[in-house]
Parts: sequence; C-alpha cells; structure tokens
Amino acid sequence: MDQGMISFASGNANPQTFPAAGFAEAAADVMRTMAVDLTTYPGSLGHEGLRQLMARREMDREGVTVDPEHVLITNGSMQAVTLAVETLCTGEDDLVVMEELSYSGSIVAFDSMGIEMAGVPVDDDGMVMEALEETLQSLASQGRRPRCIYTLATYQNPTGTVMPRSRRLEMIAIAGRHGVPIVEDNCYGDVHFDGDVPPALYALDPSPSMIYLCSLSKIFAPGVRLGYMVARPPMLDRVLAKRHDAGPNTLASAITHAYLKDCLWDHVAMANQALKIKRDTMMSALRRELGNACSVVRPPGGLFIWVRLPDDVDPARLVDVAHDEGVEVVDGSAFHVRNDAGAVIRLAFGFPTVEEIDEGVSRLGVSLRKVRG
Amino acid sequence: MDQGMISFASGNANPQTFPAAGFAEAAADVMRTMAVDLTTYPGSLGHEGLRQLMARREMDREGVTVDPEHVLITNGSMQAVTLAVETLCTGEDDLVVMEELSYSGSIVAFDSMGIEMAGVPVDDDGMVMEALEETLQSLASQGRRPRCIYTLATYQNPTGTVMPRSRRLEMIAIAGRHGVPIVEDNCYGDVHFDGDVPPALYALDPSPSMIYLCSLSKIFAPGVRLGYMVARPPMLDRVLAKRHDAGPNTLASAITHAYLKDCLWDHVAMANQALKIKRDTMMSALRRELGNACSVVRPPGGLFIWVRLPDDVDPARLVDVAHDEGVEVVDGSAFHVRNDAGAVIRLAFGFPTVEEIDEGVSRLGVSLRKVRG
Repeated sequence: MDQGMISFASGNANPQTFPAAGFAEAAADVMRTMAVDLTTYPGSLGHEGLRQLMARREMDREGVTVDPEHVLITNGSMQAVTLAVETLCTGEDDLVVMEELSYSGSIVAFDSMGIEMAGVPVDDDGMVMEALEETLQSLASQGRRPRCIYTLATYQNPTGTVMPRSRRLEMIAIAGRHGVPIVEDNCYGDVHFDGDVPPALYALDPSPSMIYLCSLSKIFAPGVRLGYMVARPPMLDRVLAKRHDAGPNTLASAITHAYLKDCLWDHVAMANQALKIKRDTMMSALRRELGNACSVVRPPGGLFIWVRLPDDVDPARLVDVAHDEGVEVVDGSAFHVRNDAGAVIRLAFGFPTVEEIDEGVSRLGVSLRKVRG
Repeated sequence: MDQGMISFASGNANPQTFPAAGFAEAAADVMRTMAVDLTTYPGSLGHEGLRQLMARREMDREGVTVDPEHVLITNGSMQAVTLAVETLCTGEDDLVVMEELSYSGSIVAFDSMGIEMAGVPVDDDGMVMEALEETLQSLASQGRRPRCIYTLATYQNPTGTVMPRSRRLEMIAIAGRHGVPIVEDNCYGDVHFDGDVPPALYALDPSPSMIYLCSLSKIFAPGVRLGYMVARPPMLDRVLAKRHDAGPNTLASAITHAYLKDCLWDHVAMANQALKIKRDTMMSALRRELGNACSVVRPPGGLFIWVRLPDDVDPARLVDVAHDEGVEVVDGSAFHVRNDAGAVIRLAFGFPTVEEIDEGVSRLGVSLRKVRG
C-alpha cells in the first residue's frame, strides 16, 4: 500500500485494541512448558483448551450446548469453508446455493474448486426465503440437489444485515424439506454494536447435517489464523476424513487460549466499543460527504458498510478515481456470485484509525463528485 | 496413549532438544511489536522474514538459489502436498506416480481426493528408474499422462534410503521426456546423521514445472505447523490460485523466525546429534533383540527404521501383540499405495527417550518371539 493511502478494502481487525503486551506475556507463560505439545502432532481436532473455550463462547453467545469434541480448530475460518464444501461435494455436478452477495474469498474458492454457485437475492433481512424456495424447486425440477446452502446470516458480508429469527426458522424448514445441509458462516458473530441478534441457525437446528463455522480473525486477530468448525457426528467424521493437513496450529492455539481464557468477553466488549466508534465515524462522514446521493444502511455488527451509489456511477471507475485520491474501496461486484452487483461499493472500517476513516471518506466524497462530473 | 506405552508409531520430533525457554524468550521479544502484523492478513506467501530464512536454508543445504518470493509458507508440509497435487490435477482421470512405499498421510490424502496412485518399486537407492520409465510408458500407451511424480528422494519415508545423484538426474530426464512435473517432498531434509547427501532434485533441475516441499516439523517442531513450498512462476501463480485459506500463520512464523534466524544450523546440529544417538540406540537394540531374524538397514537420516520381518510373520498380528506388550509400531502396509507391503513394520525413534527406545525394542523382541511361537 502506498504511503498515505487509506484502505477501506480488507476486513482486517483493529490494531489499536490488539493486546500486544498481554498477549506476549501469556505466550511467555505458556510456552516454557510446551516442549511435548510442540514436538508432537496436534490431532485432527486441535488444542483441547481452545476447543473448550470456543465451545463455551458459542454457548454464551448463541445459547447452544457445544461438545468440545465436536469442535475442529482450523487455519482461519476459510479453511473451514473449503473443508465443509469439500466434504459435501462429490466432484460431479457440484452446486452451492448461497446469498447472491457473499464473501469474495468464498466465491473465488468455490469457483476455483469447480463448484457452481446459485445466488439467492438478499434484502434488508438477509437471504429472501421465497427466492430460496423457488431456487431449490427450480433445481429439483432439473433433477439437481445442491450440496449445501452456504449462508452468512449474521452481519452478512458484504451487506451487513442480520437475518431475523423467523426467517432463520423458515430457512431451516426449507433446507430440511429439500434435504440440503446448511453451512452457516458466523465469522463476524462477536462483532456486535447494537440491537438484538437472534441465535445462530446452529442453535435453532438440531439437524445432524448442519455445519457451523466461526473465527477469531474478526474480533481478535487474523494473524493467529484460528477459526473453527462445529459439526455433529457422523457429519464430523465425514469432515475429518477430508482433513489432510496433519492438524491445526498448536502454538497459536495455546498462546491464544492462554490469553483469552480469562478475558474473552472483556476483550470482545473492549474491541466492540472501539469498532462501534469507527462505524459511527464512518456513518457520519458518509452522511456528510455523500448526503442523499447514496444509500447507506447502518450495520448493527460486522466490519463493513455497503454503499449503494447513484445509478449513473460506474463503481469500477469510482474505485480507480478513489485510488488516485488516496483511498482504497472495493467494487461491490467482487462480492456477487455472478460478478454483477450494480452500483455499489464495500467499505471496511476495522483497521484504519478514526482520523483515517474521516479523511478517507472525505477523499471518497471528492472522488464521487469527480466521477459524477 | 496408555500410561507406560512406548510409541514408535508417529514421526514426532524430539522433545528433549526442543528449546522451550529460548523459544519463549524469542516470542516475548517479537510479539510486543506485532499488533499490526497480527491484525492484518498475511498474504498468500506468508511472513517475509521466515521466507528469507527458509530460502537461505535451501541455499545452504542444497546449494540452490531460492528467491524468497518463490517460497510459500504452509500449514505444515502436508498442506503443501495437497496444494501441489490440487494444482496439477484436473478433477478427471487424475493419477500420481510415486514410490510404492511412501508417507501414509500422502497416500490417505490422495485417495480421499480421488487421485489414483501408480506405485513404482523402490530399492536401497530409492525409486527404481527402470520401473519408473516402464510405468510411464505403459501409462502413455493407454493414453494417460500422470499429473506428477511425487517423490521422497532423501531419507525416504518409510524406507530411510537416499537416492544417489545419478539416479536423481535420471529421474529428471525421464520426467522431462514424458512431460510430467516432479513434486519433491524433502520434509526430512535436515535430519542428517552420516554420509554425503546429493543435492535435492530441485537444485539439479531448473525445470519451471518442478515443485519442492520442505518442513520445520521434523527438525524443529510439528506444533508450529510450518512447512513451505518452493515453485517458480508461472507454476507458483497456478499454486497461488488454488490457495484459499487466506494465508499461513503469522504468529507461528514470526516467533519461529525470531528464534531460528540466528541459530538455525546450530539448532540442526544439536538436534541431529541427539537424534543420531536415538537411531544408534534403536539399531543396537534391534540387533540384540531381533538378531538375524529381521533385515534392518541403518538410515543415514530421517526419523524411521524400516524392519523387514521373517516371511512367516503377519505384521498386523505383530502390531497387536506388541501393543499388548506395551510398544506401538506400525504395519508397513500403511505406507504402501496398495496397502500391501508384506512382512514389514516401521519404527519411529524421534520422540521416545533413549531408555524408552531400548525398553520398547525389548518389548518388540518379546512380541516377535511370541508371534513366531
């Protein structure tokens, strides 16, 4: 990145709230006694203490009992995403149904894995259930059953929406009727600012085919590369049969567990308070700079603001002009399964400082005015 | 593992030479300044310092110049193994040519990935070149071109052999003639006890299709989950297009780099000295307990001794009886592409203490005598 460039591009975490000193102390404490743990292989599930802590995290947040023996630590939640679909796909005629706007990394991965994507429209409450039912019926009439429904129901990336409880129950019912497993990607689950959030689909659905994914990248640090999957047997065993990396990172797991075990929710509260200020700063700056020209919905959690531009704006051109003005933003089409999102951009607010957010949105305002002539 | 059980099963590293205190100090030093590195994504190649150190490691050991920008840090070398074959495979009619005796984890992974394996016989110098040529010709006559030749040329797992330079050059020539890329798995490269070792195939072959894999699991610690791949563009770009895990572990990379950067070869020398004593202890104990009944070749490096049993011994039964006697060994067929290695077992000597090795081999001797009546 150029000197002076302000980036709203990537969903990085917040360096200002990263507890570097405390984390280093926890490391020094735990590492002195780790010779045997580090010189042996971690097993397919990974570090027991971290699995217990993550099971407790899900119980506290989602109200669901999770057996730590059903938690699989992964190399970030992206390894869990690919592992889930590898488990469910057969190598022939593979198709995943998903929000038509979704995480670009998942879209790129599915595409590279030769998996067809059927996008379902989203509204302010996430995936539209009538459209999901229609998609599944249309596929069924062609004799096709998707391998899974991949969904980001909470703080949907990129749109920032939260699916209400009633719609979650409807999705579970539809998936059950069509015999299609749900893969729920809750990687933003803890990044919460305001409002109530219904329980995860995993907490509402005892189906043995459900696969649940979460991460420590968003609320803690992507550099620890720790995500996880929760799945009940026998689905868990099917997943384990597809894991070929000799297990997850013991060192990162042990240090992260040593740090977070006594302060997980304090850390989450502290991190969210700082992120909320960044969100609010970006929202105010967007109102100031873009006025009524753009449509912006305040996300109740997550790391992104989805900005619908005036129809006459080519988002690719805005991205280029903004880059020249010193601010990086992402064309919304990167998050569309058919690369066709219309006039939208995504802004990430986790990493830049409050001052950079304010200045970056000013540069975006200049850019938009230039593009519109 | 039961209390009192001695395990020769897994290729774990040596806990007695793991520098726990120094490693913890290095961590404390480096981690205090890592807030930005940890809260951002690592990129597809991973930690720059570790890539530079590993490039230097290859230059020092193999005499080959490696551009750190051609080094891809992975979650152990097993992620590199699957990434390499995923890159080279097409999803249809995929076939890998490899030593018919090979690493069980690779065999299980290829099988699970739907990849057919053509095993080439090995002798005391590794893969037999006449048999390789014959295999490739026979496949060509069926209109089939394998996706790669996967080889462990140095300290071959499980047989412990080293392929001589002349045979390496022959393999490179054969692979070139048939247009088949070589994937060289050199994960035991630094675990060296005696004798000269020829340069890696990668150092002997400037072919742009060559993929080279190495690891820190064997000479340092599997719990840091750090391996790497070296590939030249455009092969490197093809590999990167198949990487979907949002990059390798920054935390483990930074700590491991901070510790090893000034003492890599001192650590290797110290670790090998201790491992050599373990190898020698196991060799002596095997001679004492098994006498002339079994054929055992002293491995010049690596972590395993391959024991050919008398023909009348069922290795699966020996494994069971040995387990009852308190020692874990592995049936050689786990390392055979068709699960059919005959009367052999593999013994790993890296993890147990010298005393445990001696006692474990005694228990193995008792077991063998029981099995033979």
